[in-house]
Amino acid sequence: MKFVIQKDRLVQSVQDVMKAVSSRTTIPILTGIKIVATEEGVTLTGSDSDISIESFIPTEENGKEIVEIKQTGSIVLQARFFSEIVKKLPKESVEIEVLGHHMTVIRSGKAEFNLNGLDAEEYPHLPQVEEHNSFRVPTDLLKTMIRQTVFSVSTSETRPILTGVNWKLENRELICIATDSHRLALRKAKIETDTDSSYNVVIPGKSLNELSKILADTSDEIEIVITESQVLFKAENLLFFSRLLDGNYPDTTRLIPAESKTDMVLNTKEFLQAIDRASLLAKEGRNNVVKFSTLEEGIVEVSSNTPEIGKVIEEVQTQEITGEELKISFSAKYMMDALKALEGTEIKISFTGAMRPFLIRTPEDDSILQLILPVRTY
Amino acid sequence: MKFVIQKDRLVQSVQDVMKAVSSRTTIPILTGIKIVATEEGVTLTGSDSDISIESFIPTEENGKEIVEIKQTGSIVLQARFFSEIVKKLPKESVEIEVLGHHMTVIRSGKAEFNLNGLDAEEYPHLPQVEEHNSFRVPTDLLKTMIRQTVFSVSTSETRPILTGVNWKLENRELICIATDSHRLALRKAKIETDTDSSYNVVIPGKSLNELSKILADTSDEIEIVITESQVLFKAENLLFFSRLLDGNYPDTTRLIPAESKTDMVLNTKEFLQAIDRASLLAKEGRNNVVKFSTLEEGIVEVSSNTPEIGKVIEEVQTQEITGEELKISFSAKYMMDALKALEGTEIKISFTGAMRPFLIRTPEDDSILQLILPVRTY
Repeated sequence: MKFVIQKDRLVQSVQDVMKAVSSRTTIPILTGIKIVATEEGVTLTGSDSDISIESFIPTEENGKEIVEIKQTGSIVLQARFFSEIVKKLPKESVEIEVLGHHMTVIRSGKAEFNLNGLDAEEYPHLPQVEEHNSFRVPTDLLKTMIRQTVFSVSTSETRPILTGVNWKLENRELICIATDSHRLALRKAKIETDTDSSYNVVIPGKSLNELSKILADTSDEIEIVITESQVLFKAENLLFFSRLLDGNYPDTTRLIPAESKTDMVLNTKEFLQAIDRASLLAKEGRNNVVKFSTLEEGIVEVSSNTPEIGKVIEEVQTQEITGEELKISFSAKYMMDALKALEGTEIKISFTGAMRPFLIRTPEDDSILQLILPVRTY
Repeated sequence: MKFVIQKDRLVQSVQDVMKAVSSRTTIPILTGIKIVATEEGVTLTGSDSDISIESFIPTEENGKEIVEIKQTGSIVLQARFFSEIVKKLPKESVEIEVLGHHMTVIRSGKAEFNLNGLDAEEYPHLPQVEEHNSFRVPTDLLKTMIRQTVFSVSTSETRPILTGVNWKLENRELICIATDSHRLALRKAKIETDTDSSYNVVIPGKSLNELSKILADTSDEIEIVITESQVLFKAENLLFFSRLLDGNYPDTTRLIPAESKTDMVLNTKEFLQAIDRASLLAKEGRNNVVKFSTLEEGIVEVSSNTPEIGKVIEEVQTQEITGEELKISFSAKYMMDALKALEGTEIKISFTGAMRPFLIRTPEDDSILQLILPVRTY
């Protein structure tokens, strides 16, 4: 294998596939990046066996040469060293050549690195994903849907299925749901698909987080292929594979109250800041529980009291309030997460009494919904 | 105590004095910030008993009211909570009032905090520093002198005196020296002083680092007062006290070779980047030792070899080279630290053989000097 490549493109691709490489793997070769040079270009692969990322650098793009292939071939290089090296090379172009015994030379200007490589034949094969069933989502919408749900996955391995986000595709609508059993985030969107296939899968939250970091903020569509055990995201020159979680995701529809007893509309930013301050003195380790109650004249009060430190009272003027008086306690952290996930300057909260889950939504928009279970303190 | 104060000024002052507050203190009241309101303004104090910082906010500045004192007095508030609270307050002005039993109310807009305070009388008194002997240094020069020396202090407590920077004032010249016994940094500058006093003190490296963070990048002069056990830096509305280290600093003058056998001038950035790359594959934990040798035609080679990973060879063209051929090994980390501390596009290195300390300087500038002891590997 021997090729000359533009440094900035190599750096970008290495950075992308590094997202899948873990230093804590039980399969030593997975601490490496696989490099394959063909007549068409150079393909880099990183994997931790849960997530695999493949980045392709074509020999030519828009008539400009990016890679000059001198000899096809393949090698696996230590990801940690290789990524540091390419970032710091002195010139705009880099030559990579495999000599005998997998010894690889990296040259740029007057810098010459010799790295001990590994046989690419020993690198695990990527999952085979058949592509007859796929659908497409604009990349920026996908990133938004991930951002608005993934924070609600469980971080505990007690119920592994809850560490993933439930993706359902039904009637050409994609529904993403995450819950850690104390709160729930739901986001749905109409999508384009050639088939009427329906899916119900659970994608690890970690995979979605990594995917989100790699994808550019573009409205270009990304193709999504779902199989029994894998999901594949196909962007330009990029393949992102993730395993799916085994097991059935709980049915969350019955958790969402259909009726409400107290409804209010609040300014998102003002309410978020009040909650943030009210939680400052709240005890740690309990997700900063704050008290919330309705007062006269459309005012709501957020408060917390930790006798050894002090107390805080925040008053917030609602834009609109209807229904019963209310005293309730909830996690300030969950409320702040939910408010940050919602878009728009106003939010609507619907309560069904102090002991029932409540809903936070954007008014006049049923594509997104955040649900929080209250904490019993009153 | 009761006053109304501009939030941004309070936030800035709290941030400054927080630099001295440690959560790991054996004196509980030092986890607090002391607030004193007088007719002239508000003074905040933070201290970890090694460093003490006092920030003064005057009632008026340039004809603009900053503080309105309603009642003089004092209180100590938990630094961690107080600093978080003031940063997040909703309005541009803040009212702080002490009620009975040191209970303190902080109001801003519709936010109201009640914090349990402590009696300011129980806060330790700051060191008394007599000011008849002082000298002045432009603030930006002081920050540069700190930056160019403090990184060389020892991080080990084996010889506590080496964790400080030796400051000597003689013949109206300030000399700052730091060494961890493997390398040494020296910077000197002519300064203005009213007296012909001379000093020889050792200031903890940590104190100088914290001081540097607080000081603005300005050419305004800062006044420095040195006593037997304390140093006081006086900037506008800011007092920074540090204890001095006990003991005699070693005489470092005889460490610095007066002659050299091999001299060279190199482009600073090019050499720094070559060292950086050469150290990438060098073994960790040994400060990344690299080999350095002179080749033909004014070229020097920097290399390292770690059999299990690979090797790297870097060639750098010198601007000028005179004297004997040389093979030497040294810590890449120390070399990079030294190169970063030097200003200018070119540096001069003077070697006196493979086993002797060598000097790195800016050509034609004797105000700064970096010295490194080689490592025996050849």
